[in-house]
Amino acid sequence: MNALLTDLYELTMGAGYVLAGKQHEVATFDLTIRRLPPNRGYAVAAGLAQAVEYLLNLRFEEEEIEYLRSLSQFQHAPEDFFTLLREFRFRGDLFAVPEGTLLFAGEPALTVRAPIFEAQLAETYLLSTIGYQTMIATKASRMTRAAEGRAVVEFGTRRAYSPEAGVIAGRAAYIGGCAGTSNTLSGMRYGIPVFGTAAHSWVQSFESETESFRVLQKLLQEGTIYLIDTYDTMEAARAVANLGKPAFGVRLDSGDLVALSRDVRRILDAAGLSECKIMATGNLNEYKIGALIADGAQVDSFGVGTDLVISPDAPGMSVVYKLAEIQSNGRKRFTAKFSEDKETLPGGKQIFRYEDRDVLGCSWECPSGEADALIEPVILEGELVRPPLAIKKIRDYTMRQLKRLPEEYHHLESPAAYPVVLSEELQNLHRSVKESHQGAL
Amino acid sequence: MNALLTDLYELTMGAGYVLAGKQHEVATFDLTIRRLPPNRGYAVAAGLAQAVEYLLNLRFEEEEIEYLRSLSQFQHAPEDFFTLLREFRFRGDLFAVPEGTLLFAGEPALTVRAPIFEAQLAETYLLSTIGYQTMIATKASRMTRAAEGRAVVEFGTRRAYSPEAGVIAGRAAYIGGCAGTSNTLSGMRYGIPVFGTAAHSWVQSFESETESFRVLQKLLQEGTIYLIDTYDTMEAARAVANLGKPAFGVRLDSGDLVALSRDVRRILDAAGLSECKIMATGNLNEYKIGALIADGAQVDSFGVGTDLVISPDAPGMSVVYKLAEIQSNGRKRFTAKFSEDKETLPGGKQIFRYEDRDVLGCSWECPSGEADALIEPVILEGELVRPPLAIKKIRDYTMRQLKRLPEEYHHLESPAAYPVVLSEELQNLHRSVKESHQGAL
Repeated sequence: MNALLTDLYELTMGAGYVLAGKQHEVATFDLTIRRLPPNRGYAVAAGLAQAVEYLLNLRFEEEEIEYLRSLSQFQHAPEDFFTLLREFRFRGDLFAVPEGTLLFAGEPALTVRAPIFEAQLAETYLLSTIGYQTMIATKASRMTRAAEGRAVVEFGTRRAYSPEAGVIAGRAAYIGGCAGTSNTLSGMRYGIPVFGTAAHSWVQSFESETESFRVLQKLLQEGTIYLIDTYDTMEAARAVANLGKPAFGVRLDSGDLVALSRDVRRILDAAGLSECKIMATGNLNEYKIGALIADGAQVDSFGVGTDLVISPDAPGMSVVYKLAEIQSNGRKRFTAKFSEDKETLPGGKQIFRYEDRDVLGCSWECPSGEADALIEPVILEGELVRPPLAIKKIRDYTMRQLKRLPEEYHHLESPAAYPVVLSEELQNLHRSVKESHQGAL
Repeated sequence: MNALLTDLYELTMGAGYVLAGKQHEVATFDLTIRRLPPNRGYAVAAGLAQAVEYLLNLRFEEEEIEYLRSLSQFQHAPEDFFTLLREFRFRGDLFAVPEGTLLFAGEPALTVRAPIFEAQLAETYLLSTIGYQTMIATKASRMTRAAEGRAVVEFGTRRAYSPEAGVIAGRAAYIGGCAGTSNTLSGMRYGIPVFGTAAHSWVQSFESETESFRVLQKLLQEGTIYLIDTYDTMEAARAVANLGKPAFGVRLDSGDLVALSRDVRRILDAAGLSECKIMATGNLNEYKIGALIADGAQVDSFGVGTDLVISPDAPGMSVVYKLAEIQSNGRKRFTAKFSEDKETLPGGKQIFRYEDRDVLGCSWECPSGEADALIEPVILEGELVRPPLAIKKIRDYTMRQLKRLPEEYHHLESPAAYPVVLSEELQNLHRSVKESHQGAL
């Protein structure tokens, strides 16, 4: 299952570790948010459940092993490597912050400690699933905030970077604060509320728009949302007014949403449909949602697609997976990288969250004073010790933390930088690793 | 398989079509590139093979049907709808341009003609898989061009928007001109060359960098590529020079790539390793590749990750899937959308490619003079009539077309707009649909 869904070099290194007799050495890798994307004051950690599922199900099928054997890169690989693949299971440890945790620049989302090839192999998948879901959950939290209490629904699968990306985007968007998703599989798989009524093609497929509305009402009744911009929006709004109850609302997908929403609101109210909601869609994002509300648009909920699932104002999440410790023959060695602009910190880590700041320390430190240690054991020696939370609980946890975070870190543009300081012990460790490395040169 | 990987409204509309007795009406939908992204003179069509696989395997599992039954949206759905799901297969037609075809603004990549629910259901998946792969193949073609004959390898899975997105990104990048991918599953599944040797963690896991190089050389021999920027690049280059042959090359992943590549080149040449290649990686894209070459970097190949798989300079591909015709009781009706800024053209279409321009016409037109009709039947009445080409052939086809496309459409910034004109017949049809619609209001 997905064992080959990894960069080839994870596998060539695996063969190399066996060749060097290092396959039993225990390595510790951190998966860290190197820096926050532009205009982000925090990140909402997401994707842990998929990381856990991946690690617990990692196996190599016989045909996958045969494929590797056929590659030039494995012509000199030791036979023990293929035996290792055949017997492969993840037998290491996973430590992580719970999904929904707010993270800041330089903080790890998870730590893997395992025999070196097991930890190495997982790099590619973990970076992708944590990076992507964290990006989406963060974006969703911004849109939800901009909507000031109005519901925001994730409609992005058609714009997602591959259909499967849409399924997990629905999950991450819900964690970040969306009310639900249009992705039906995401709804079924993760237990998320699903939304959707009809498209322009529905209206077009009938000879008369009114007839298309009538059938929709019969089907969806008090859940009916009419899409009213296929031809003439005002005309369609009057048709909705004539149909009367039951109806949930109407959706506007193009045009001047401020003016249209006000005009439509008047038509609906005049027809006694004041409880009928107006939903807006069409290339929306947190900035446009904020502007619509500021400009007095009469909108009760928003559907967001493209900008939620691809986050074009801050594409990608700068996450890295770096070796921090290695243990061989009972001796622990701390490691770091000193490349220009790409330095990393040695040693397994813990995040101590104080009232007004975070301290990034070594995993074995005790905090001074009142602090929460955010990184918890999830898998120990290949066994799940902390099953993923129900998705609703994850979302509630996100909401509680966002509420506690002071205003200046929420700003949609140029938010303040949350204070994250290194513990004295981590600073000393970093210095000593750097010095001993320079001494060795 | 994947039948629920769709927006919920495709399914509510399905229930509605049954309720309205319209489920046997045959609908024609176009999947069109509405406009090209900024700085793109063309798009490389990709993703058809996945579209075909999806359509041919569409089935509803019993538990999926039960899930739908449990949703509020289907409480008033007719029982015949669930029977339709249980017996569901795609029995319609798919027409498409071959993968690797260059497309321009306003041109369809494919047309689905099927009983309306079958065509409707597929919308979400088709938009996502065609949109994403087309975006990647297009981006890859730009990077390959910027590299002026040097190999460009796709290394982006860790940065892809979900791990599965990385698998199909590898495929699309190869179609667009990349030499291969680091994604092992992409290599196995699609028969694409795979690349990769070792990461920084490989070097760090050994007490000495030189020892890590020695083991890598033993494993990979003439395929060995050393990553030399973990600590001190020049130091590492001298270690590589001392190890001598066999070696394929070295990889630079940080720092001033122009200066470093020249210094490393000198060290390698002085050691008699003039055939040893230098690969550059680290946040590269077509613009940076072009600048490196212009500045005299001694680089023989490039690895590209983030910017290839997420295309941040032109995120997303504006593809739409719109109803163009509907046939009921033997009568054909043409449809279009007249929303502001989102107009669509009626009728099934054909692209006629002349030497120096494209004519977008109706599917039943015959071209005047020498033109290729690009849209071909792929599935007819649910049966595959044109199996996907081997991936290598698709790539060759892309290369041939890119070679034929005049220079001005290749410019990486502000390329010329390729002439696409509407046939007289399509213009007339559009006018008459618009008029008859306005008459009906």
